Amino acid sequence: MYRQLREEKVFKDPVHNYVHVQDEIIWSLINTSEFQRLRRIRQLGTSYLTFHGAEHSRFSHSLGVYEITRRIISQFERANYADWPREEGMVALCAALLHDLGHGPFSHSVEQAFQMHHEDWTCRILLGDTEVRSVLRRMGDDFPDKVAGVIRKDYKQPIVVNLVSSPLDADRMDYLLRDAYFTGVNYGTIDMDRILRMLRPYKGRIVVKDSGMHAVEDYLMSRYQMYWQIYFHPVTRSSEIILRQIFKRAKELYEQGHHFKFLPEPLPSLFNRTMTVQDYLQLDEALVQTAFMQWRKETDELLGELCSRFIDRKLYKYVEMDSLDIETIEEIRAAFNKAGLNPEYDLEIDFPTDLPYDVFRPDGEGREKQILLLDRQERLREISEVSDIVRSISGLQRGKFHLYFPDDKVRIIIDELPHEIAEIFVEQH
Amino acid sequence: MYRQLREEKVFKDPVHNYVHVQDEIIWSLINTSEFQRLRRIRQLGTSYLTFHGAEHSRFSHSLGVYEITRRIISQFERANYADWPREEGMVALCAALLHDLGHGPFSHSVEQAFQMHHEDWTCRILLGDTEVRSVLRRMGDDFPDKVAGVIRKDYKQPIVVNLVSSPLDADRMDYLLRDAYFTGVNYGTIDMDRILRMLRPYKGRIVVKDSGMHAVEDYLMSRYQMYWQIYFHPVTRSSEIILRQIFKRAKELYEQGHHFKFLPEPLPSLFNRTMTVQDYLQLDEALVQTAFMQWRKETDELLGELCSRFIDRKLYKYVEMDSLDIETIEEIRAAFNKAGLNPEYDLEIDFPTDLPYDVFRPDGEGREKQILLLDRQERLREISEVSDIVRSISGLQRGKFHLYFPDDKVRIIIDELPHEIAEIFVEQH
Amino acid sequence: MYRQLREEKVFKDPVHNYVHVQDEIIWSLINTSEFQRLRRIRQLGTSYLTFHGAEHSRFSHSLGVYEITRRIISQFERANYADWPREEGMVALCAALLHDLGHGPFSHSVEQAFQMHHEDWTCRILLGDTEVRSVLRRMGDDFPDKVAGVIRKDYKQPIVVNLVSSPLDADRMDYLLRDAYFTGVNYGTIDMDRILRMLRPYKGRIVVKDSGMHAVEDYLMSRYQMYWQIYFHPVTRSSEIILRQIFKRAKELYEQGHHFKFLPEPLPSLFNRTMTVQDYLQLDEALVQTAFMQWRKETDELLGELCSRFIDRKLYKYVEMDSLDIETIEEIRAAFNKAGLNPEYDLEIDFPTDLPYDVFRPDGEGREKQILLLDRQERLREISEVSDIVRSISGLQRGKFHLYFPDDKVRIIIDELPHEIAEIFVEQH
Amino acid sequence: MYRQLREEKVFKDPVHNYVHVQDEIIWSLINTSEFQRLRRIRQLGTSYLTFHGAEHSRFSHSLGVYEITRRIISQFERANYADWPREEGMVALCAALLHDLGHGPFSHSVEQAFQMHHEDWTCRILLGDTEVRSVLRRMGDDFPDKVAGVIRKDYKQPIVVNLVSSPLDADRMDYLLRDAYFTGVNYGTIDMDRILRMLRPYKGRIVVKDSGMHAVEDYLMSRYQMYWQIYFHPVTRSSEIILRQIFKRAKELYEQGHHFKFLPEPLPSLFNRTMTVQDYLQLDEALVQTAFMQWRKETDELLGELCSRFIDRKLYKYVEMDSLDIETIEEIRAAFNKAGLNPEYDLEIDFPTDLPYDVFRPDGEGREKQILLLDRQERLREISEVSDIVRSISGLQRGKFHLYFPDDKVRIIIDELPHEIAEIFVEQH
Repeated sequence: MYRQLREEKVFKDPVHNYVHVQDEIIWSLINTSEFQRLRRIRQLGTSYLTFHGAEHSRFSHSLGVYEITRRIISQFERANYADWPREEGMVALCAALLHDLGHGPFSHSVEQAFQMHHEDWTCRILLGDTEVRSVLRRMGDDFPDKVAGVIRKDYKQPIVVNLVSSPLDADRMDYLLRDAYFTGVNYGTIDMDRILRMLRPYKGRIVVKDSGMHAVEDYLMSRYQMYWQIYFHPVTRSSEIILRQIFKRAKELYEQGHHFKFLPEPLPSLFNRTMTVQDYLQLDEALVQTAFMQWRKETDELLGELCSRFIDRKLYKYVEMDSLDIETIEEIRAAFNKAGLNPEYDLEIDFPTDLPYDVFRPDGEGREKQILLLDRQERLREISEVSDIVRSISGLQRGKFHLYFPDDKVRIIIDELPHEIAEIFVEQH
Repeated sequence: MYRQLREEKVFKDPVHNYVHVQDEIIWSLINTSEFQRLRRIRQLGTSYLTFHGAEHSRFSHSLGVYEITRRIISQFERANYADWPREEGMVALCAALLHDLGHGPFSHSVEQAFQMHHEDWTCRILLGDTEVRSVLRRMGDDFPDKVAGVIRKDYKQPIVVNLVSSPLDADRMDYLLRDAYFTGVNYGTIDMDRILRMLRPYKGRIVVKDSGMHAVEDYLMSRYQMYWQIYFHPVTRSSEIILRQIFKRAKELYEQGHHFKFLPEPLPSLFNRTMTVQDYLQLDEALVQTAFMQWRKETDELLGELCSRFIDRKLYKYVEMDSLDIETIEEIRAAFNKAGLNPEYDLEIDFPTDLPYDVFRPDGEGREKQILLLDRQERLREISEVSDIVRSISGLQRGKFHLYFPDDKVRIIIDELPHEIAEIFVEQH
Repeated sequence: MYRQLREEKVFKDPVHNYVHVQDEIIWSLINTSEFQRLRRIRQLGTSYLTFHGAEHSRFSHSLGVYEITRRIISQFERANYADWPREEGMVALCAALLHDLGHGPFSHSVEQAFQMHHEDWTCRILLGDTEVRSVLRRMGDDFPDKVAGVIRKDYKQPIVVNLVSSPLDADRMDYLLRDAYFTGVNYGTIDMDRILRMLRPYKGRIVVKDSGMHAVEDYLMSRYQMYWQIYFHPVTRSSEIILRQIFKRAKELYEQGHHFKFLPEPLPSLFNRTMTVQDYLQLDEALVQTAFMQWRKETDELLGELCSRFIDRKLYKYVEMDSLDIETIEEIRAAFNKAGLNPEYDLEIDFPTDLPYDVFRPDGEGREKQILLLDRQERLREISEVSDIVRSISGLQRGKFHLYFPDDKVRIIIDELPHEIAEIFVEQH
Repeated sequence: MYRQLREEKVFKDPVHNYVHVQDEIIWSLINTSEFQRLRRIRQLGTSYLTFHGAEHSRFSHSLGVYEITRRIISQFERANYADWPREEGMVALCAALLHDLGHGPFSHSVEQAFQMHHEDWTCRILLGDTEVRSVLRRMGDDFPDKVAGVIRKDYKQPIVVNLVSSPLDADRMDYLLRDAYFTGVNYGTIDMDRILRMLRPYKGRIVVKDSGMHAVEDYLMSRYQMYWQIYFHPVTRSSEIILRQIFKRAKELYEQGHHFKFLPEPLPSLFNRTMTVQDYLQLDEALVQTAFMQWRKETDELLGELCSRFIDRKLYKYVEMDSLDIETIEEIRAAFNKAGLNPEYDLEIDFPTDLPYDVFRPDGEGREKQILLLDRQERLREISEVSDIVRSISGLQRGKFHLYFPDDKVRIIIDELPHEIAEIFVEQH
């Protein structure tokens, strides 16, 4: 049963000034333990090791996504747009608020190490025996599943899915603005107010009035810069690599029957893949960091070293290479092996375009990934047809190979490496 | 031995735009494990439970204090002020950078629970067997002790002590700006550039050119507002109370010989007061949060409940009272007792002026706590002599009693309380 | 007849981001020649000679006041407050937009020189044969008079008067924010969003919910600082003095029958006090500045000198005096006279508290000048009863005497002045 | 003779916070009547008719350019770069401060109407009988000519010319930031601090350290957006067209011997091309606006109408066309003629790429217009070689035809136009 709060509640937010909560359901959702857990998951994972301001949590981001969605919907309602299904407002707001509920600690690294997907966990939490689900059910027995449908992108009303997840959605707008604010860079200063005013519900999706084209151009440029300056920053990548290696090593040890001095719940269930929703909800970044602190004292030297690297920020160094073929990689690995290094851990190759972030590429995929402009004649055009600047960046396939390695260790054996290999690792100085 | 970096290094900072590092010593200090630990200590303790943006760490704040100090000194040097002892620059910079090194997790609450002082720990780290000390010793064997002297406020050059710790120091300027930025309030927008330009080294202390009076007025008003809006916010106070109660309960249990399922190093040494510097450096907020997560499963119900409250943010409610006498308190305690509540834990009285934060009060203390204005005739005057606005706020003794209590529990027994007691706890609704 | 615009129009505004126009009447009013004239009147008169960014016009300020009023009303309507008379919205919006319509060039100085009042002119324009009036009449024959009633403060609905003109009105909020933005100072950063959310229509006036007290405190401190830092800045005062002297001299010459080489319409009607509304509407700052440029070539040396001073920014210097009695003034005047200076023009005494700006003083005047807080028990309390900080500043009667004089001229005759007089003018160096 | 000021002076600036003046020469230059005149010339001409905040003057911009140059030089000096000729600092600072001295009112339009060039006037003022010249001569008899040499780009030290005028110079950085600030758009938020830190004097020119590439990319994108969003805004173009037509008509009338009721000095000398430096210095925007106000009453109807349009902002409407050939233009002109309109004034064709603003195009011109990146191996590379994003925008030749016309007049005769012509002018509705 839907109820408005007697009096609107607000959260002070540095990005949107105030986040306004008007519905009792939203207020209750925010106060569930599952949503509060997002306070203990950083929005940008290990980026705080590169940009010390980037300590902000998924809790703030989720509130921000909710707030932007609220503003969009309230504008749709004020303008009385025919194509907006008014009764779907609450589903959209809940999905916006809860879309990141399933994120675990340092998501990207952990997901890679344990082959999990945060969207799945979001749905499991929405539909499991949780406080969130029982709050959602106040709106009707099928309401949790409706919200999960939006997350799964199979909800019957495609416009709601499109509102919550599209190349110009509240999620992306909030993270650009928020990540720029907390890192302190100024790439993310998009004119959100203008974009919001230009959005139109139109035949089952959200499109942009064509006079908003320049604001969208600017938004896409911001995204581009944020990806290459912040999200793909090599120092951040280096810390993610260490993180992944720690998990890889810990899992190996666990599978080898190593007796951990420190392995509180729910870590065992993570390692042996028996996690329940209740287990998962106990995972947070405090636990992961504490494990790393304690694992420095484990008998396994490699695990200890990796944990120290992460905790004390003694990350791997990197060299950038314009190109890199498989043979060269094999040669390096062989040379490392010969010199007593362990190429499984002492060498990582990274090519940042294959990361789980999506740089906008209009031709790459289906229409739901496109930004469409609506003109006065009610014609729809994909933005890169109209905008030179979008067209010019939309094919860009930047990206270079980065080799990551423990500088301290490599320096010791550098003379034992073949000259042409050694050169690669010296170039940086 | 002092060396400049071949090339200046910078940290991107949302508050000061860039933090500039020019000296090899500063760079090395930042990279010690003791300084990196500050990344795991929040600047504002539990304030993030009130202002979700306030996740920033003491690491960023320490860099900020260093940066402001660097700018002040570089200006003193450019202007060639006779009263500034140029050779003390590096001591001042190191003390500025390291002044918070001894802060533990949720400092204020933990310090109260275990009677510790973070300044002492800062000195112990500076002088103990640490990376920081060995970096400092590159400047000379007595250099660590010089820096510790500035922290202890007994350094031979009082102007250095005054620069690092005074009512208008880099520490205060950074935290006002930074805490305002991350919480998102706009009280903290002081005109730092103007204040910096007005500072003058003068006869062993830092004074302010009198034409800077208005900027100082504005700074003091910002401080005033920040204390009452942010630092003394009742919701934050409530979370600090829970925190203190958790530690109090855990210590009680420990002393009673309770067998903790989860009590990794260095927690035992915290409880039995045998902490070494090495133990202390393992304390961080990740560990404390993880302990709270795990303690929810301890057999002691009270500890579990308190931990759940903190983790799930089910804090104590509060009522504000203009006055409160000891008899009333005793009556409430008795009534609580009678109704089956535990007044030791279910009732806390707080009067926010006796907190370890200093609101500026010029007449309260010695001259080193005063802000002095220097006029063209080289006369020094204490600012409240000259400024109406400072005079008018300097005696203000705001503050009200707050009663904190578990609303859920009290509501159950409310009818068992004497009417006039019950009324106190109902008033809020 | 009221009509909404088919599509909302916006103005890009640096202070409010966007100014939204939704009504056809507002749009038409903005496009009248009388409103466009406000583009040629600076918001802060001669302040641009002190703060070079302060070039902004009354046009922008008027749009800003309209926008804030629009937001307040739209919030009143959303919340459905019983005490807000919905049908008065358009009167309030028009009065907000047009409240400064009668401002002339460099208003304060010109008003003093020619004893005019801009509120009168606003009403004359609203009710005269003007485009504005004919637009307003689309809403009904008595609509122009309704709007004028709000300006005259005798409109039948006191809440509308109170909304448009009170110590916490849209006018003041806009000018604090706007003047701070364009001068570049940071005193004016009030939390407008929070204040707006706290406003309540209540029994014929606008009051503030008591939980907004701190935001109001901060607003009053901002006002205080803006008045003393910006509006009363001695350099700005100096330029206003020159301006007033130019008009005084030109009027004297006109009255003496001097033949001006340059005196286009409507200047003669200004001098002989026969201005019609049509004349008045031709007055703008471009004309005044052009007159000053041309008058430098008039045969009257004094007028020429004063105009050059204004144009080339060779303003009068000033000395500040804690006290000044009439006898001293007379002595200075006599000494000036004796030394060949003209005390009518070469000496001006200024005591900035008697300026046509109102610093908030709650006890000074009637209840309509008070800020009232509304608590949960629907009690109204004047803010200084509740707030220590407001009480502490509300009696402040700062202000010092300033003597303004042409430094170049005084320096020449300084040795001819009696020693104790000469000293006054030397002190500054 | 060079002297430092006893005490640094500052200007409060919204863009750079403070502008610092340390040299007596700079202080004196700012106080000359020629420099003060820049207060009466708007930085963005008629843009204030589109963006109401854009009232800022060339005075503020000139201070800003000076300040950025001062920061660059002071950094070059601190870092002791071998390729920076220290003794040229003062020439560079003066040239930076004075580079816009020759701008007249609404420069671009007036320059087009009267075939003048502001750079010429800058040099004439520097070298003529002016206060500026006499201040500059304090540095040596040939100093004015040195400064003029930098403006003329033939100064013996090319690095000084390059510092003051290049695709990444202080002029461009200031106007992007300043115009963005005053219009209120957020395209101009470039990371100036980072760019400044990356600049290097190198073999007679200023280059950029290659790690600054992304900041430069962002700067170029900002420029791109500012040109198309602000500088080429069709409403601004429309007002410039009216302005040009007014001058064109007035000149025609003057040449036909029309007796102007209002034509004060120095307007006649403007019309008959006999302007001296002294005449030119009397030209400002106040005079131009006053002339327009007065000319509304001239007997020539066309002049009156155009002036009213400008003053009351009844600008020409426009239609955008993807392409336009000469024949179509001729047909429109003929049709207008036939319908009684005057195509000389009632029709203007505009193609914004041929405006006197330079969008960055690396291949278009010589090396001095290129931005060069310097890598660790001291290789220089033109930025578009390295940056995909710069390469992708560098060839962009956006731009569409715009037809400007008096909508009110065209609407009256629209039925008399051939159908396919009429359609062009109707399309907009």
